[in-house]
Amino acid sequence: MTNSNGKLSEEKVFKDPVHRYIHVQDEVIWDLVATSEFQRLRRIRQLGTTYFTFHGAEHSRFNHSLGVYEIVRRIIDDVFQEKPFLNQEERLLCLCAALLHDLGHGPFSHSFEKVFHYDHEEFTQAIIVGDTEVNQVLKKVGHDFPKKVAEVIAKTYKNKLVVSLISSQIDADRMDYLLRDAYYTGVSYGNFDMERILRVMRPQEDQVVFKSSGMHAVEDYIMSRYQMYWQVYFHPVTRSSEVILTKILHRAKQLYSKNYTFKTQPVHFDSIFKEKITLQDYLRLDENVISFYFQAWQQEDDEILSDLCTRFLNRNLFKYIEFNPSEQMMKLMELTTLFTEAGIDPKYYLVVDSSSDLPYDFYRPGEEEERLPIHLLMPNGEIRELSRQSEIVDAISGKRRTDHKLYFPQDIIESLPEEGSVKQKIKEILAI
Amino acid sequence: MTNSNGKLSEEKVFKDPVHRYIHVQDEVIWDLVATSEFQRLRRIRQLGTTYFTFHGAEHSRFNHSLGVYEIVRRIIDDVFQEKPFLNQEERLLCLCAALLHDLGHGPFSHSFEKVFHYDHEEFTQAIIVGDTEVNQVLKKVGHDFPKKVAEVIAKTYKNKLVVSLISSQIDADRMDYLLRDAYYTGVSYGNFDMERILRVMRPQEDQVVFKSSGMHAVEDYIMSRYQMYWQVYFHPVTRSSEVILTKILHRAKQLYSKNYTFKTQPVHFDSIFKEKITLQDYLRLDENVISFYFQAWQQEDDEILSDLCTRFLNRNLFKYIEFNPSEQMMKLMELTTLFTEAGIDPKYYLVVDSSSDLPYDFYRPGEEEERLPIHLLMPNGEIRELSRQSEIVDAISGKRRTDHKLYFPQDIIESLPEEGSVKQKIKEILAI
Amino acid sequence: MTNSNGKLSEEKVFKDPVHRYIHVQDEVIWDLVATSEFQRLRRIRQLGTTYFTFHGAEHSRFNHSLGVYEIVRRIIDDVFQEKPFLNQEERLLCLCAALLHDLGHGPFSHSFEKVFHYDHEEFTQAIIVGDTEVNQVLKKVGHDFPKKVAEVIAKTYKNKLVVSLISSQIDADRMDYLLRDAYYTGVSYGNFDMERILRVMRPQEDQVVFKSSGMHAVEDYIMSRYQMYWQVYFHPVTRSSEVILTKILHRAKQLYSKNYTFKTQPVHFDSIFKEKITLQDYLRLDENVISFYFQAWQQEDDEILSDLCTRFLNRNLFKYIEFNPSEQMMKLMELTTLFTEAGIDPKYYLVVDSSSDLPYDFYRPGEEEERLPIHLLMPNGEIRELSRQSEIVDAISGKRRTDHKLYFPQDIIESLPEEGSVKQKIKEILAI
Amino acid sequence: MTNSNGKLSEEKVFKDPVHRYIHVQDEVIWDLVATSEFQRLRRIRQLGTTYFTFHGAEHSRFNHSLGVYEIVRRIIDDVFQEKPFLNQEERLLCLCAALLHDLGHGPFSHSFEKVFHYDHEEFTQAIIVGDTEVNQVLKKVGHDFPKKVAEVIAKTYKNKLVVSLISSQIDADRMDYLLRDAYYTGVSYGNFDMERILRVMRPQEDQVVFKSSGMHAVEDYIMSRYQMYWQVYFHPVTRSSEVILTKILHRAKQLYSKNYTFKTQPVHFDSIFKEKITLQDYLRLDENVISFYFQAWQQEDDEILSDLCTRFLNRNLFKYIEFNPSEQMMKLMELTTLFTEAGIDPKYYLVVDSSSDLPYDFYRPGEEEERLPIHLLMPNGEIRELSRQSEIVDAISGKRRTDHKLYFPQDIIESLPEEGSVKQKIKEILAI
Repeated sequence: MTNSNGKLSEEKVFKDPVHRYIHVQDEVIWDLVATSEFQRLRRIRQLGTTYFTFHGAEHSRFNHSLGVYEIVRRIIDDVFQEKPFLNQEERLLCLCAALLHDLGHGPFSHSFEKVFHYDHEEFTQAIIVGDTEVNQVLKKVGHDFPKKVAEVIAKTYKNKLVVSLISSQIDADRMDYLLRDAYYTGVSYGNFDMERILRVMRPQEDQVVFKSSGMHAVEDYIMSRYQMYWQVYFHPVTRSSEVILTKILHRAKQLYSKNYTFKTQPVHFDSIFKEKITLQDYLRLDENVISFYFQAWQQEDDEILSDLCTRFLNRNLFKYIEFNPSEQMMKLMELTTLFTEAGIDPKYYLVVDSSSDLPYDFYRPGEEEERLPIHLLMPNGEIRELSRQSEIVDAISGKRRTDHKLYFPQDIIESLPEEGSVKQKIKEILAI
Repeated sequence: MTNSNGKLSEEKVFKDPVHRYIHVQDEVIWDLVATSEFQRLRRIRQLGTTYFTFHGAEHSRFNHSLGVYEIVRRIIDDVFQEKPFLNQEERLLCLCAALLHDLGHGPFSHSFEKVFHYDHEEFTQAIIVGDTEVNQVLKKVGHDFPKKVAEVIAKTYKNKLVVSLISSQIDADRMDYLLRDAYYTGVSYGNFDMERILRVMRPQEDQVVFKSSGMHAVEDYIMSRYQMYWQVYFHPVTRSSEVILTKILHRAKQLYSKNYTFKTQPVHFDSIFKEKITLQDYLRLDENVISFYFQAWQQEDDEILSDLCTRFLNRNLFKYIEFNPSEQMMKLMELTTLFTEAGIDPKYYLVVDSSSDLPYDFYRPGEEEERLPIHLLMPNGEIRELSRQSEIVDAISGKRRTDHKLYFPQDIIESLPEEGSVKQKIKEILAI
Repeated sequence: MTNSNGKLSEEKVFKDPVHRYIHVQDEVIWDLVATSEFQRLRRIRQLGTTYFTFHGAEHSRFNHSLGVYEIVRRIIDDVFQEKPFLNQEERLLCLCAALLHDLGHGPFSHSFEKVFHYDHEEFTQAIIVGDTEVNQVLKKVGHDFPKKVAEVIAKTYKNKLVVSLISSQIDADRMDYLLRDAYYTGVSYGNFDMERILRVMRPQEDQVVFKSSGMHAVEDYIMSRYQMYWQVYFHPVTRSSEVILTKILHRAKQLYSKNYTFKTQPVHFDSIFKEKITLQDYLRLDENVISFYFQAWQQEDDEILSDLCTRFLNRNLFKYIEFNPSEQMMKLMELTTLFTEAGIDPKYYLVVDSSSDLPYDFYRPGEEEERLPIHLLMPNGEIRELSRQSEIVDAISGKRRTDHKLYFPQDIIESLPEEGSVKQKIKEILAI
Repeated sequence: MTNSNGKLSEEKVFKDPVHRYIHVQDEVIWDLVATSEFQRLRRIRQLGTTYFTFHGAEHSRFNHSLGVYEIVRRIIDDVFQEKPFLNQEERLLCLCAALLHDLGHGPFSHSFEKVFHYDHEEFTQAIIVGDTEVNQVLKKVGHDFPKKVAEVIAKTYKNKLVVSLISSQIDADRMDYLLRDAYYTGVSYGNFDMERILRVMRPQEDQVVFKSSGMHAVEDYIMSRYQMYWQVYFHPVTRSSEVILTKILHRAKQLYSKNYTFKTQPVHFDSIFKEKITLQDYLRLDENVISFYFQAWQQEDDEILSDLCTRFLNRNLFKYIEFNPSEQMMKLMELTTLFTEAGIDPKYYLVVDSSSDLPYDFYRPGEEEERLPIHLLMPNGEIRELSRQSEIVDAISGKRRTDHKLYFPQDIIESLPEEGSVKQKIKEILAI
């Protein structure tokens, strides 16, 4: 079924609602998709708990990974075409890195990483270079090929052009997720003219630049990104479910550390609660497994764990008010006292959540999520950083926006006894 | 938050990619959505294993149920408007029945019902009239309101106009699933002009009829349905995953009946394996729970169970060839013998699967899935059955189309020893 | 700007709402678009008077011609790719024929050809081989290149594969117009999965065939075509405006032949009224010129010409009833008499119009508009005619459907004097 | 066909590609659409010469006018619903003003108004209150109803809520044209979530405000507007065709004033060239008439008129370079001299064109096109101007962006004799 050059005898496709078709011509790609580690991504949602807010957003990371691959494939095969910037191996390197860039994500990554202190990117590396099916497939291309793929994803690979396709401020990853998340949620904000952006991409020695004639399409992409962050990714209802999820994990971990006897023993969590996670354990974890435990834990005797799990499964979320940390700390302390008096544990039921986004930055030195700036190719051949040319982008460039909310269980507060002043005081402070 | 008339103080919406927004004005609808039984539908996919073929099809029955509700709401509130065919209670009855019509679906309904001999519609009834949150909410409308909702879904309710909105050959259920499944899979076949169909709907005493000026839109809907069945619902790859799923259930049930000692004991399956399913047990079952067991059962000592579960999770499906039951029975018998000789249990690894569809019928007496014919309202006031007016529909009316395929594990066959003639014979017969 | 091989130094694009972009890589294509004969197509609407029914359908043949070109380009460059069925000249031949296939269309072709007895295809030929800018551009490719392009469009070119791309029952022409007309009218019927159809196209020696795995997409295309014919192209309101247009042309021609003195002399019509049209005169005619005359002729003393022009411009169309020629001839004769009595000239105000369509035919010998049947490529390499494989297509194959309507000016009838029985009798017969 | 309350006996619809359907329930609307003055809008394109750049943009003002009407209808009937801010007459007033707001547009308004010094809005008023079919229809509602409609369009009507629906910085006019022009050109920039914006509109005594929860949708709308201006409306190629059009009008007017004997006498232009335009003459002018003259004038002896008309019809446009008025005036003067030397009249062939846009302003006192600012309704009931709440909008608020280009006929320059230094000098200065 394959020719000697690693090409499938006939192109295969996946039907995709965002890109119409995902085209596969290389055997290594076809084989990677068939590995158990990649199929596992079907069991991890792209947008975590967002489906509680936008019910359409039930799509998995499997979807998105194929989409990122397809965009990179189009850039290399259609846009860069006969240009000699990438040799045959580097072409495959880009495609594999695109396909596998999210391979190490676990269930509800955001919350899990915060509570259990790990970085999913380390697991991506580990899966690629470890004893896995993915590694077996990659090795067929070349002995050190897995290592190179890992380097591209880690952004340490020497050819920065390759890296910039996968991670810059306008890379295939971001383009796919904006379009895809907009499609599944049904919001229109995420739309931008990807075709136009692809058409104006030009490979340079160490980066991709964009012909300045396409600047407006790039501006539009940045605005889409900005809107998606505030309309979808940071939606206060989604953050409420994240808050509950995080608190469930905290509670279960704490009970475990105190040798609480679970009715349903968290065997899948052993190494994760101990923060000594093995790759094998990690790969067993997925959102179906988490759901299984949360359902079971509704029956636990610990009231906090049981209540939070029931809330999560039945979408009985916390309510919220705006919260200004610099001005309202006193209020928070007062509420903490009142919650404690009322027998509601504030550690689990009174939560400040902050979301923060930097729509675009021309230079982000030393940040964890450092991404490369966007460069325009001017008609005279000059390379110019985007915000120096676009007034719109300049206006928002480098401006971090942060939003704080205070979450609490309104139903529990309402069920407090009327007599006594605690309930009344809480409601006054929260203005509910 | 609610007025005395059961209306919310302000309309609420869900963002929906298919209908743009789902509008909720009635408190009972809002409260039904919040019940644990309805939220459970988020954990059951609309299209079962179809996501193995069309990776976009990961949407849940929660999605679809809201969609059916929205279509019925639009028909009643926008299309029928001031027409006096439905009183206030019957309006709510339609809305609730629309929302809840799939409430009794379990995980992978199609396969489960076949293996464990139950009907999900009975569970829909049971949840509505039983001791559940849904029942509590419905009772607030009226003491016998739950019973009426159940009757509408069972098609026994006296006002047939109400029934026909929920189940006929062109009802809100079908319109939503065609549009929705087309959207999530990304195929274009499922599209038809629902706006036009809604515009030509006219309520009659005991049914909904369609102004004949909209006949072409109805034809187009029927063609969409036909195409979706053969392009999506009966896709041979999906059927391959259904085959494996069914065989897993058979195997687990058989092992259970023989008192096999599972490493991961199927506690959630106790009453289902005994075919004495309680409502409580049933409601605990969802596709996350199934996934949990299948993952665990990969480690079982029983090789068949372990192999089939691994295949299912990693999408290592059976291959297939066309199969003509009337001509090729001899072939099947030969293969059965050869498989047995080769040590491949034909009960689990050699499966004939048949799919069959009736695109439209003017009269379907006594069938289980009996649905009402489509009637046109002619300019002169006459009511005429669709196939008598439409040549296209007449041409396909009542013609059942059936497709048979023979499924088998090509990889196992390939791994048989070359020496000896068994492998060769099997491959010859299968022409692989 | 061009390389020696006739390629533009950089690909150019047109933004297109249907195909997103039209890609031009060849200088000859770019130059053809810039000719005055091709630019003239901007002044001729794709769907004639359809904009009176679907106000969005104001798009021109310029649009559609670019679209057909783009589809053929994709088939050759993307689908057939490295396959050796077309040499370099034949590739250009296909592209040019696709771009120019409608070049000879005049204003409101359908009506004009009927009234003035000519065939627009002859003008297409004449423009291509005559003394025109288009001819100059084509000649640069090769001395006999214009002749070859004309032969492809005339379907007499020796390589039938080339011909079948431009004119068969599923060619680039039809695919573009269905998608495009659906887009501009806003109806959904015209949609089908062109991407899928392109993917399954396979060139053969003398025709394009379709892999049988794509049969359902082809079925869907045929249904789309059927629906577009009856929903859009033959819409009774559009036919009403065609009727009036035809009658204007008849009247003007008759007045001209009787030496009627026009206030606005029809100088552009001289050679057309004499039915000795020169190419130069023909090229001056476009829908803007027609509109100019119709507006001016509203002021003519001839009441019939003036009334019909006013009706056309202000969309004051004729009403219609169903008409059965075999049964209602008596009725028509009676109406003719009554109209004459009432002083309404039945030659202009009482019109039977018939529309007729053959959705698909496996064999259409000797018809003027003869188009090739659709052939499937079966898995075993066999070639099979579509209707022998598809039950749906078989059901409608070769079945001509015809619709007759009788058109009349209801407003004039209503304005007849009440006294006397003429008005009453007319209204009775028409049942208005 | 109508009830006593001015309602049609059955709702009528127009199929529209942007809003799916345009719904008409009121007889006055139906009758207005049928007037000759409104039908005339079919012969005036929405985007003037933009179809030379985006070939899909051939849609007329008829299209857009129906769209604006539909948006206002939805706001009043669906969004404001039972709220008592508009009485029955004011409802009709809004609908009629929306439908008729562009009624006075002539062919290629932008250029015509500049050359012949008139304002199309005065003609809108004149048509509404003058002796026209539109006036007759409006009078049926009430004797002073036409005057009120004219006042709403002139923004002098007392109820400012009514005015703000038709003309503010986020009115039905702008919402429709952004969506519609994006649809027909095929660009994606014009898309924003109109459904969401409609949902958060709240009527106040003297204006429409927007619930602050919808702020992001409003931001997105403003960005769409900004992008459409620079990507579509001010596209340099479109401006090139505008330049040529304007120069044709200048030339013809000048020739007329000098008693040049036209082969095709501009009878339709008599009163316009004299700048004493009568309403009757104005209504006879449309883009078909203009096209007729331009085609005829290609044969005029005056070489400038003939050349410019040929350029316009065949899209043989001027090329352009960036031009900085403050720095490059010397260059322009030099070019003027050189063009004169070369015998190319710089008055017609060397043109500076400037485009300028203000994306949003919180206060625009005394400007001609003054539009109201956008106000948000905060959760606490406060009304807050948009740019005080939105950082994005604040960043671009009040910032006028201007772009200058210098247009010239490259083909004529290229055809200058090589000998002598004029050609060379011109090319050096233009850097072509």
